[in-house]
Amino acid sequence: MSELSGRDVISIVDFSRSELDLIMEEAEKLKGKRTDDLKGKIMATAFFEPSTRTRLSFQTAMLRLGGSVIGFSSEEGTSIEKGESFSDTIRMLDNYSDIIVVRHRLEGAAKLAAELADAPVINAGDGSKNHPTQTMLDLFTIKETFGHIDGLNVGVLGDLRFGRAASSFILGVSKYNVKLFLISPPELKARRDVIAYLKDNNIKFSEVERLEDVISELDVIYVTRVQKERFADPAEYEKVRGSYRITARMLASARKEAIVMHPLPRVDEIDISVDSTPHAAYFRQAANGVPVRMALLKLILGG
Amino acid sequence: MSELSGRDVISIVDFSRSELDLIMEEAEKLKGKRTDDLKGKIMATAFFEPSTRTRLSFQTAMLRLGGSVIGFSSEEGTSIEKGESFSDTIRMLDNYSDIIVVRHRLEGAAKLAAELADAPVINAGDGSKNHPTQTMLDLFTIKETFGHIDGLNVGVLGDLRFGRAASSFILGVSKYNVKLFLISPPELKARRDVIAYLKDNNIKFSEVERLEDVISELDVIYVTRVQKERFADPAEYEKVRGSYRITARMLASARKEAIVMHPLPRVDEIDISVDSTPHAAYFRQAANGVPVRMALLKLILGG
Amino acid sequence: MSELSGRDVISIVDFSRSELDLIMEEAEKLKGKRTDDLKGKIMATAFFEPSTRTRLSFQTAMLRLGGSVIGFSSEEGTSIEKGESFSDTIRMLDNYSDIIVVRHRLEGAAKLAAELADAPVINAGDGSKNHPTQTMLDLFTIKETFGHIDGLNVGVLGDLRFGRAASSFILGVSKYNVKLFLISPPELKARRDVIAYLKDNNIKFSEVERLEDVISELDVIYVTRVQKERFADPAEYEKVRGSYRITARMLASARKEAIVMHPLPRVDEIDISVDSTPHAAYFRQAANGVPVRMALLKLILGG
Repeated sequence: MSELSGRDVISIVDFSRSELDLIMEEAEKLKGKRTDDLKGKIMATAFFEPSTRTRLSFQTAMLRLGGSVIGFSSEEGTSIEKGESFSDTIRMLDNYSDIIVVRHRLEGAAKLAAELADAPVINAGDGSKNHPTQTMLDLFTIKETFGHIDGLNVGVLGDLRFGRAASSFILGVSKYNVKLFLISPPELKARRDVIAYLKDNNIKFSEVERLEDVISELDVIYVTRVQKERFADPAEYEKVRGSYRITARMLASARKEAIVMHPLPRVDEIDISVDSTPHAAYFRQAANGVPVRMALLKLILGG
Repeated sequence: MSELSGRDVISIVDFSRSELDLIMEEAEKLKGKRTDDLKGKIMATAFFEPSTRTRLSFQTAMLRLGGSVIGFSSEEGTSIEKGESFSDTIRMLDNYSDIIVVRHRLEGAAKLAAELADAPVINAGDGSKNHPTQTMLDLFTIKETFGHIDGLNVGVLGDLRFGRAASSFILGVSKYNVKLFLISPPELKARRDVIAYLKDNNIKFSEVERLEDVISELDVIYVTRVQKERFADPAEYEKVRGSYRITARMLASARKEAIVMHPLPRVDEIDISVDSTPHAAYFRQAANGVPVRMALLKLILGG
Repeated sequence: MSELSGRDVISIVDFSRSELDLIMEEAEKLKGKRTDDLKGKIMATAFFEPSTRTRLSFQTAMLRLGGSVIGFSSEEGTSIEKGESFSDTIRMLDNYSDIIVVRHRLEGAAKLAAELADAPVINAGDGSKNHPTQTMLDLFTIKETFGHIDGLNVGVLGDLRFGRAASSFILGVSKYNVKLFLISPPELKARRDVIAYLKDNNIKFSEVERLEDVISELDVIYVTRVQKERFADPAEYEKVRGSYRITARMLASARKEAIVMHPLPRVDEIDISVDSTPHAAYFRQAANGVPVRMALLKLILGG
């Protein structure tokens, strides 16, 4: 019986370093494996907001453990459209499944689901701050690359205000002894509560506007998208967009071992010229979604 | 080999009491179980009209018996949109699956499918009268609560004219020696053919307009939604809506053991204040969809 | 280890007669069977263009071999809508699955996917020329009917210009010693590159406009739909439509053993009066999608 048995996964901040280590060790063991550990178990995917990558990697993880999957991939065609409440929908899935994976645009949806359901609930992204399994695979990718996370210089770039993968990553990587560089336009600086968390936990961090100014110091460059719609004045967007679009040329000033990460999907914030450089870690990172989610499902549901 | 082997399930009226008993006994045995009884079997869900709850509970039932599932959850993106006929679509699924579960807005769709397909067909709701598996789980829930169905006073409330769960339930519960109270606004009284069926079968029933007048006599209060759109005059709707919305306060006059049932999803016809009363049976009822559908699938396809 | 192990399936022209024979022999063996040959394997369906029949028959094939399935059935709700590139989507599926089945409206999509993915890729229809697995099941149906393909007179009717099933069938059946009759309105004659392929391979063929003129010579009548939208002048369409709509009456002049085929779905190009004649082979043909796709999956992924 794992210490994570029956555990809800709501926010990355709820996990201790030793719990994260346990998940990462299990993920390493499960990488590329097929097992029957969860034969007979059913996972429900309750994706009130669509996300192909996250949903399919959870589904793959469950299938590779011998389990099966039910659920929906968007609100369309579900009882939500007939006016059913979120609570009643979660109660329904609780009747049908052994674990519920929730994605929702509103902050707190996964927590509410966990309060309603007897089955464990995993947050597959809600609101603009929490996406704990994304952060777990991010950390796993960093550890896999460098052998450790402590001591690294980590830059997080782009929309640090509304991007849930970015906020969740900042909170998660702060469990380790890293130096953080929060790189964003002024409009999209990290949320106050995220900054407060960093201060409360004595994390070294600096907020900067231009990647160029710090790129040579970074081991990890975590990129997220800057969306035009976020700017009150479109001219402001045009002014900054170039700095937040990574190209192979920009990486000339990067450290030799530096890796570029991205939660994907990307649109144009990482130029495809980067794909063929040794810095590109984002496809490997996405692939790690499967073993990390396998580890989590097995530790929560497994005998 | 069960006596239900290979059987189509089109209307609740086609089932004898002893067949319903068999299904309910099997459901009781299967509750909470995982088996390999239907390993290698494929169920097709042909949901021409969406219904998350019914579809996912059929899917869960099939998975818990070790089988697998293909199909579609709405007409969108199917060949129906390219102009393919209902018949050709059913013939296709007949080629691919061992049993076909059909949901359709039009009465008679499941029967037509059963005539076309070699595989057994289960009606998961068509037209405004038939939803046999819903009724089976309704009856199972009543029997589970009271130990028997005979002798109970059963009220059915709401839209008895267009609501298929309500009509199907009235027909099904009439197989038992119950006293029926059909409670609805005049516009939404039970269909003539349903009333004729009750008379032909010497079922005791009375038609009333207000729940308040009979609530103290009822063992079962089966609630369905009254939709504004059903009224020619919106003022008529406003006049009656209060009487068809159950609250904890209304239940003060109910019998101590009385249960409130609902096919779900509900919108606002049962106030959430009812959820925490001992009368609330609807979540338990919905959960029973899984063992009852498991029983049916196993008896039709097994052995 | 089969000689098709790990093979991409992009166009029917890439397959030799002996490879097609191998697939058809395997399909015959697998017809009606359930195996565990692909237990633990995951197939991804990447249907950028919807197709219920092709998708569900691939899914059924995989399930009957003991494998499982992930994927999407249309672009709706996927990351494509968020602006993700085709390449990144394919790379994602490559991380999650053992084989990728691609459907796309654009020619070359499957080939591009095969270049990007480590996993084998099967073209489930792209552009207006390639639909290799459809052609394989077409050939299998002919062989099953006549015991051989060589020596037959084969008519292909309808939209030979834009219809991908028709073009792919013409290319595939030309691997055999058949006499081809290409029957279409002038606007919808076979594509130049298809005609060039026939000439390069010394295939006997003739292009005609009216089925009536050649129907008595045909063993196989392969029907596809003529769409009104394809005609610049609607009056032209009205003039020809009758000749491209098969009825039982028209088949009075056909050979006794002649079979009518169609890739389905049909709209009105084969009257339902044909369904009950011994000529109707299209439902049997559609059913053959399962064993042929089982054979292919097993030969590519199996042991």
